[in-house]
Amino acid sequence: MGWGDLGAFGEPSKETPNLDQMASEGMLFLNFYTANPLCSPSRAALLTGRLPIRNGFYTTNAHARNAYTPQSIVGGIPDSELLLPELLKKAGYTNKIIGKWHLGHRPQFHPLKHGFDEWFGSPNCHFGPYDNKAVPNIPVYRDWEMVGRYYEDFNIDLKTGEANLTQIYLQEALDFISRQQASQQPFFLYWAIDATHAPVYASKHFLGTSQRGLYGDAVREIDDSIGKILKHLQKLGISENTFVFFTSDNGAALISAPKQGGSNGRFLCGKQTTFEGGMREPAIAWWPGHIPAGKVSHQLGNVMDLFTTSLSLAGLQPPSDRQIDGIDLLPAILQGQLIDRPIFYYRGNEMMAVRVGLYKAHYWTWSNSWEEYSKGIDFCPGQNVSGVTTHTKEEHTTLPLLFHLGRDPGEKYPLSFASSEYEGAMERISNVVQQHKVTMVPGEPQLNVCDKAVMNWSPPGCEKLGKCLKLPESEPKKCIWPH
Amino acid sequence: MGWGDLGAFGEPSKETPNLDQMASEGMLFLNFYTANPLCSPSRAALLTGRLPIRNGFYTTNAHARNAYTPQSIVGGIPDSELLLPELLKKAGYTNKIIGKWHLGHRPQFHPLKHGFDEWFGSPNCHFGPYDNKAVPNIPVYRDWEMVGRYYEDFNIDLKTGEANLTQIYLQEALDFISRQQASQQPFFLYWAIDATHAPVYASKHFLGTSQRGLYGDAVREIDDSIGKILKHLQKLGISENTFVFFTSDNGAALISAPKQGGSNGRFLCGKQTTFEGGMREPAIAWWPGHIPAGKVSHQLGNVMDLFTTSLSLAGLQPPSDRQIDGIDLLPAILQGQLIDRPIFYYRGNEMMAVRVGLYKAHYWTWSNSWEEYSKGIDFCPGQNVSGVTTHTKEEHTTLPLLFHLGRDPGEKYPLSFASSEYEGAMERISNVVQQHKVTMVPGEPQLNVCDKAVMNWSPPGCEKLGKCLKLPESEPKKCIWPH
Repeated sequence: MGWGDLGAFGEPSKETPNLDQMASEGMLFLNFYTANPLCSPSRAALLTGRLPIRNGFYTTNAHARNAYTPQSIVGGIPDSELLLPELLKKAGYTNKIIGKWHLGHRPQFHPLKHGFDEWFGSPNCHFGPYDNKAVPNIPVYRDWEMVGRYYEDFNIDLKTGEANLTQIYLQEALDFISRQQASQQPFFLYWAIDATHAPVYASKHFLGTSQRGLYGDAVREIDDSIGKILKHLQKLGISENTFVFFTSDNGAALISAPKQGGSNGRFLCGKQTTFEGGMREPAIAWWPGHIPAGKVSHQLGNVMDLFTTSLSLAGLQPPSDRQIDGIDLLPAILQGQLIDRPIFYYRGNEMMAVRVGLYKAHYWTWSNSWEEYSKGIDFCPGQNVSGVTTHTKEEHTTLPLLFHLGRDPGEKYPLSFASSEYEGAMERISNVVQQHKVTMVPGEPQLNVCDKAVMNWSPPGCEKLGKCLKLPESEPKKCIWPH
Repeated sequence: MGWGDLGAFGEPSKETPNLDQMASEGMLFLNFYTANPLCSPSRAALLTGRLPIRNGFYTTNAHARNAYTPQSIVGGIPDSELLLPELLKKAGYTNKIIGKWHLGHRPQFHPLKHGFDEWFGSPNCHFGPYDNKAVPNIPVYRDWEMVGRYYEDFNIDLKTGEANLTQIYLQEALDFISRQQASQQPFFLYWAIDATHAPVYASKHFLGTSQRGLYGDAVREIDDSIGKILKHLQKLGISENTFVFFTSDNGAALISAPKQGGSNGRFLCGKQTTFEGGMREPAIAWWPGHIPAGKVSHQLGNVMDLFTTSLSLAGLQPPSDRQIDGIDLLPAILQGQLIDRPIFYYRGNEMMAVRVGLYKAHYWTWSNSWEEYSKGIDFCPGQNVSGVTTHTKEEHTTLPLLFHLGRDPGEKYPLSFASSEYEGAMERISNVVQQHKVTMVPGEPQLNVCDKAVMNWSPPGCEKLGKCLKLPESEPKKCIWPH
């Protein structure tokens, strides 16, 4: 989902009444970012509070390439990483993930081995249907074991776009919350639904109801579900004890537009890129009785902050034995403070850009290769900013391209290198970047090796369902990341 | 000002708290249009309720050219046109225009000859400074006579961007409202300020206060002024008797970006074009006690509707001896009804496009000429949709380019000509267009002839101020409209 997909952020059809109301009852973040323009690294960053370059969710197979966790990926979240639910457990929290895990699907990466107590959902994207011979369909787990597969037991109709997955995830959430409230247990719910990822789906009740087509139907179903979750918290009388945060893991995938692609508002490009459209996210904090209604924050935030902020809410300290990139947002949320901190825009192993205050400096620019682009793969459809949305990877490390995001949120007008404004801003930014680079210790890259043999052929529980598939020979090789 | 310039419409700096509050207390229109992507014709349409092609605010000097009322224009609003204030007078209203008139500056076009009782402002744009030899500076009028000239008596500092004009206009508005309330007279105030038109200015108090630069300073000053006007109405106890509508006369001029140009959100291109960015406008209706707070309307609206709606509010009927294009919006505003009506997008003498429901059909596409574009004049900076933002005037009258504005508000993905969706939508649209063309009786074009001798050399009142300038020889010729 993109920054521009919510009515509160200016989507012209304004079809998200529940999220808009959540914002009007809570705090809207205008400058909230993900840690990566792609799903897996972004989610790894959220749960570890650390940049993907540190927690291993990147590749060194090629320079500045986006990588994630398809079925063939060998790597996953290292045991050495401390995940938010692992830490919350120490404060008595029960932790549940509903939806897409995406931090590796081999046994050692299972979410219940990394702090979660419960899981309902899938390890990978709901791509498919596969033939179960060349590629197996993605399994859906309940806790330790699979309970079926997408397209087989959990239908996604690629023709009509119908699937009731969001409804299932919603019911899982409501049930979990009810159980926790009944047992008086504190809880952490990571509601990581698949929608609005392509192939886009919505349940029957929502199909055809949006002005925006199927993608809009999916957004409306999410909006409706979030409304139901918030009302459930209120009905149970625990809304004033429950901190809720809504955001997305990357910008809208413009490549799927118009039928399956969302909106990044007026920001440049989309998912896969380090322009604003790829990484600035819709974000809303909600906590009645604590966050004053209708507040707007200009704080520069990041999904990694949810790690540190959640620990803070639980009265816990973040780990001191490693670099944590997330900051505690509570002073911004509760006291309206503005904390000075940079935002780093990574693509794989490269820091492409950095934001400091209202300035954003691009050290590298790249949308995708001419080769891909000539095949119709376009991450910036209808947008072309000469020298910015480049199709060759352009290095600007000696003289970064600098934008003022207040005057120019669309990254269309680089500041003149000769201006005193450029000089002043770059002096500050250079210090931030130097400090960042000097202290950077990259983690072991997890997204380098792929192997057909590690696919979801025979997940735990498959034998009970008669759904075990025959593994092919192991043939590890370098994963190919085209962009 | 553009659709995307308000926080309520998704401007990422969200610096318009008063307009956002106006929306949260009133009704936000998402699909509100101007009648023309340029100032004079748009304002003529607003005050007459008629398309510029009918009221004469267009040119036939060349095909599909934008024309307006520079100082050298010979034409203006014809006597045969009935303006909103002329009609409101019959219901006892006192009418005032504050700011830019723009419907002709020769004596017969004076606003007080067309229904207004009072005027403070200028007949033309605040371009300049001029040398008073080749071109005179634009006069500022109080009622019948000039009281000074821009740059001479009403300073606009082009270097710093400082000018207190909006403050003067604000004070005029507050004073007028107070006087009307004291005399218990019903009133119509047309607060037609110059800002945010280039050259952009703001008063000292607002300079440098916006994240968006000088343009944002101007937006903030307008926002603040509107807040003061609404509070004034409330303080005087007449807010429940006063209908207030906020909108703009064309999309943001992207050609002035980034320092002097605003935002059309995610819409395509800007001022001068018939893409959404050129003609979809921010719009808010406010009437406490009548319009329920926080409503959003999807009604297709147009500035021309303000003519008909205002008459309706005053208990008057629109003229029956001529075609009126504006509709009465009160059912949409007060009862939430949706009225089916088309939106026509004209550029000069050509109907470029039409919107029916969520579909928009382009019969002609043109941004501007290659010749202009090659000189750096770009109405769609950073945007380039192949076959859509064309630099040659492209005719599509036999097979219009069709967009679905719900799925594709950015006009990037024309529907396939072979699709049944195309066929179904075009059948409906073709009927609308045929009906429109068959009944169209164009007015006498007013914007064809220019003459240096008609410039503001010696406006009424100049002799009292010693500000009369020598007229050059009359030399009428065809005006040149480049785009």
